[in-house]
Amino acid sequence: MKNLTWELAHIAHVELYTPKLDQSIRFFTELLGMYVTKLEGDSAWLRAYDDYEHHTLKLTAHKHTGMGHFAWRTRSAESLQSRVEAIEKMGLGIGWTDHECDYGKAYQFRYPDGHLCELYFDSNKYRATEETKSALKNTASKFPGKGMNVRRLDHLNLLAKDLAGFRDFQFGTLGGRMTETIQFEDGPKGVWVSVNSKTYDLAVTEDHSGLNGRFHHVTYAVNSREEVLIAADIALENDIFIETGPHKHAIQQTFFLYLYEPGGNRVEIANPTARLILDPDYETIVWNKEERSKGQAWGLKTVESFHTRGTPMPDELL
Amino acid sequence: MKNLTWELAHIAHVELYTPKLDQSIRFFTELLGMYVTKLEGDSAWLRAYDDYEHHTLKLTAHKHTGMGHFAWRTRSAESLQSRVEAIEKMGLGIGWTDHECDYGKAYQFRYPDGHLCELYFDSNKYRATEETKSALKNTASKFPGKGMNVRRLDHLNLLAKDLAGFRDFQFGTLGGRMTETIQFEDGPKGVWVSVNSKTYDLAVTEDHSGLNGRFHHVTYAVNSREEVLIAADIALENDIFIETGPHKHAIQQTFFLYLYEPGGNRVEIANPTARLILDPDYETIVWNKEERSKGQAWGLKTVESFHTRGTPMPDELL
Amino acid sequence: MKNLTWELAHIAHVELYTPKLDQSIRFFTELLGMYVTKLEGDSAWLRAYDDYEHHTLKLTAHKHTGMGHFAWRTRSAESLQSRVEAIEKMGLGIGWTDHECDYGKAYQFRYPDGHLCELYFDSNKYRATEETKSALKNTASKFPGKGMNVRRLDHLNLLAKDLAGFRDFQFGTLGGRMTETIQFEDGPKGVWVSVNSKTYDLAVTEDHSGLNGRFHHVTYAVNSREEVLIAADIALENDIFIETGPHKHAIQQTFFLYLYEPGGNRVEIANPTARLILDPDYETIVWNKEERSKGQAWGLKTVESFHTRGTPMPDELL
Amino acid sequence: MKNLTWELAHIAHVELYTPKLDQSIRFFTELLGMYVTKLEGDSAWLRAYDDYEHHTLKLTAHKHTGMGHFAWRTRSAESLQSRVEAIEKMGLGIGWTDHECDYGKAYQFRYPDGHLCELYFDSNKYRATEETKSALKNTASKFPGKGMNVRRLDHLNLLAKDLAGFRDFQFGTLGGRMTETIQFEDGPKGVWVSVNSKTYDLAVTEDHSGLNGRFHHVTYAVNSREEVLIAADIALENDIFIETGPHKHAIQQTFFLYLYEPGGNRVEIANPTARLILDPDYETIVWNKEERSKGQAWGLKTVESFHTRGTPMPDELL
Repeated sequence: MKNLTWELAHIAHVELYTPKLDQSIRFFTELLGMYVTKLEGDSAWLRAYDDYEHHTLKLTAHKHTGMGHFAWRTRSAESLQSRVEAIEKMGLGIGWTDHECDYGKAYQFRYPDGHLCELYFDSNKYRATEETKSALKNTASKFPGKGMNVRRLDHLNLLAKDLAGFRDFQFGTLGGRMTETIQFEDGPKGVWVSVNSKTYDLAVTEDHSGLNGRFHHVTYAVNSREEVLIAADIALENDIFIETGPHKHAIQQTFFLYLYEPGGNRVEIANPTARLILDPDYETIVWNKEERSKGQAWGLKTVESFHTRGTPMPDELL
Repeated sequence: MKNLTWELAHIAHVELYTPKLDQSIRFFTELLGMYVTKLEGDSAWLRAYDDYEHHTLKLTAHKHTGMGHFAWRTRSAESLQSRVEAIEKMGLGIGWTDHECDYGKAYQFRYPDGHLCELYFDSNKYRATEETKSALKNTASKFPGKGMNVRRLDHLNLLAKDLAGFRDFQFGTLGGRMTETIQFEDGPKGVWVSVNSKTYDLAVTEDHSGLNGRFHHVTYAVNSREEVLIAADIALENDIFIETGPHKHAIQQTFFLYLYEPGGNRVEIANPTARLILDPDYETIVWNKEERSKGQAWGLKTVESFHTRGTPMPDELL
Repeated sequence: MKNLTWELAHIAHVELYTPKLDQSIRFFTELLGMYVTKLEGDSAWLRAYDDYEHHTLKLTAHKHTGMGHFAWRTRSAESLQSRVEAIEKMGLGIGWTDHECDYGKAYQFRYPDGHLCELYFDSNKYRATEETKSALKNTASKFPGKGMNVRRLDHLNLLAKDLAGFRDFQFGTLGGRMTETIQFEDGPKGVWVSVNSKTYDLAVTEDHSGLNGRFHHVTYAVNSREEVLIAADIALENDIFIETGPHKHAIQQTFFLYLYEPGGNRVEIANPTARLILDPDYETIVWNKEERSKGQAWGLKTVESFHTRGTPMPDELL
Repeated sequence: MKNLTWELAHIAHVELYTPKLDQSIRFFTELLGMYVTKLEGDSAWLRAYDDYEHHTLKLTAHKHTGMGHFAWRTRSAESLQSRVEAIEKMGLGIGWTDHECDYGKAYQFRYPDGHLCELYFDSNKYRATEETKSALKNTASKFPGKGMNVRRLDHLNLLAKDLAGFRDFQFGTLGGRMTETIQFEDGPKGVWVSVNSKTYDLAVTEDHSGLNGRFHHVTYAVNSREEVLIAADIALENDIFIETGPHKHAIQQTFFLYLYEPGGNRVEIANPTARLILDPDYETIVWNKEERSKGQAWGLKTVESFHTRGTPMPDELL
């Protein structure tokens, strides 16, 4: 049987729905320091200064919050082809599409919980302009010196009703490895998916709302924990709601700060320290109920909303 | 004899001459993150986000670089009065003046090397506007989230031909304590003046240029050493010349980054760590020639220009 | 009337009682990285690497926790003399004593809530040995490279039943300035005392326990916020209870981590960033009930024990 | 033709020769905070707190400095088999060996410049003891709270006479991708090899000494740039020679500090910030002579010894 561990290259981008497009754009550009690479119709495409592709974030005006779609880039054209075949075999495929923003072709499908996803290999790599060019040629664009100075997309966290189904589809059909999981007696409560040396590219946690295809958060990485603290000050000074943090997660040890962007979606600012998963046959870390009851790494109790609030929120859908 | 150690409260502001006023203003606002509190005629008055007074920096358009004047705030009205009497006794006084920007009265005089200085007690404390108000009422204004995010004026460094004369006037007439000094066999080469718990408010080092009243640098403090590193990236990305650093001085242990602002004056971005001089009868640290030959704290050789370049520069005065 | 603002130089040391002397010593040396300068009888005297005196902490074996005494160093011999006269006038004096550890003479008295305190000017400055000597002659001793690497004593926090009485004695008899205070309609709930450029040297908050003379915490400063985060990891790895933090206080903006040392006393590891109070006529920041209800700077709810737990604890005194 | 990009998993360990074994062990344990996992005969095996295998460093007593061997772990047993076949086809193979410390089987060979190397897949993963167990189960062992607290092996830098030959063997026979290179008109001067998402696992730069198989440095990663600064203080306080840094490399942007361990080998303490190479078809960054003449990222001139000094040093071999 084919080893699927290395079929995907990295989490690539996410489309967020926002009822307040202008304010959401302002949040990501003025406060996070991201660049807009395209504005068209009801959408804006953005990237952090060292994201190497045309965009990692698409913001689309919508009546409610939530995720439009997200995307994985595969490790090669062959990986793309073989993953598409596997998805089609599962009957979850939608079909090939012309990828927006001149990326080439992408394949659309839905995860078992309904999340719309794209797989692609052909990309549109960002070429800096005179204005955005960095003094260091190994940086995708200029360090912004603006707001939180996020460097790159780090990971997504989705919500799903049936975590075992999500997990089995991810590892049985798409690929990656499960670096950590929360496993209670009645089943999995959280799954962390890594497809490269990062500790995770995608997390999925249990949704108790009765809704499907919901979104928990998107995370942008900054270069230091100090900058996560600075991000908290920037949020405070600009009336951005801080849900929790800065603190260190027990799971994956991410140093986190959770914010609600003006549209209502949750955004995390995080620093990975020097932690990487380099072991090619890494053994999944399994957390049980008792271990999870201890709160975060340094003892902070996890706020209730972190376990329940996803986007869209039920009252948005009335 | 009166103990002069505590007569002065802190270094208060400096006026820099710049042949490129607009670019200098842009440097301090866009890159350092400072606020402009007044613009009038050929001058701009600025402050860092936690400077408590109306301004700590005045930029004045001029045909050459250098310092217009600087100022000390005294610890009390009585201190001001007694220092003025002492200055007048030395014959270095100029006289009382209406302090600009509604501060009240100030007394002008010249240091032995010709630097124009003001002493004052009555101040004009900054009152934040709706726009600049911080979410934390113990901060003078909003953390900017912009560029280097300098917090407050830290210290000045002047140049003088006769260091012994400068030193004796400072401690014999104005006050403060000499926390550190470079003393070679033929006399002092550097003097560090502290008037409060900071390690220094003013430094003066030897001028070999034959000129008088020259300026070496002004320093703004950031909250962490990490932010000095970030400041270096911001300088790099914005074509600001980095003279030396980031590195740690052996003297006073300041973690430094030296830049030339577009007008040509030297500006330091620094972090003090947790170091303070709390000892009320601190014994001066004396550095000899051999000790100074070791370079900076971690072995960096001091760049030649740091020993020779002051503003104005001789070729500006031709 | 005499201006008492500058009579005191700094908070100098504190004696903590501990039922587990050996473990408490190990905590402060192995985990905080402090040096023992004397061991005698049931006590140990310790200092952080850049504390300039013989000790800033005395640990004494005792049947319960709490504070034995604390001390202020005055700014001069004259300040000491005049403060003693003022204390004696208040009838709170105990008398002159030979200060332990060869400091010279100290004057003992009790604060209105019963806390035993010493005032002194003559000191015993630490002289490094070959083994403890720093490579940088402006550091009191070698950077330890051990545990949390605390640099210096920062401040104490005491508890008192009658805060107005404490406050009036502090500022009317001893000196200093009140940089911040919590003032509810029924009176003060917290008072922050600064005697130099630090934002505070002593805090006192309300005690609801019915007991007198209790202790809240002692704080040691580290050089960066990053090191407060590292301290949290060290606490976690060594079974030291983390009460709350790391987070940023709204009051005074201290970046804090609260631990219980093995004996049971609360210890804070903190970083002051670049914040200082340089204004000689600083206006007290007053926090009201509504403002305090917002929790800490970034929204963390203050844990209940922080408001109630002091040492000794009632059940230790049964 | 087979895509070799992902055949190797990560740089695994290095054996350093040291004429001062005891002092070298003390350097890596007391100052870097590493753990000894085995001591036998003339060798010691060590690991950083989050290295997942039995060791990443072997120190062997020897009459001169330099590298004994180094090792790559392959991504799978199949990768190992196919790489061995490729090496044997090149005629550079030595043969299979029983890997020390119970790892299983390894295959030995020599790089074109003579460096002895091992490939292996079967590993001996570190199992923490009660004493070394971390409070966070996703950490290989306890955060030491000791010295520089290095987290994990990051990369090696070798020297070679014929860089084109080294490069072609690496990418044509072993695998990986060249993320950056220095290319002058007369050929390559430096090659950076990445086999995962890290920016590099191995660097090789030109050797002008006439010697073969020499070693430039080994790098351990710490969690923040702040800790690189702290490492510099620890080096300073413990008479460890600092060759250059802390500063930021232009190439790969590594925030570096170069030390000579007591035996004489060069050791780097570095922090990677959040920079990763996630792009699966990353285009090699090529630096030319003019670009390299600008020094390091913030303008520091590269010290001469960095270009010339490798181990063993010629005078050790007399």
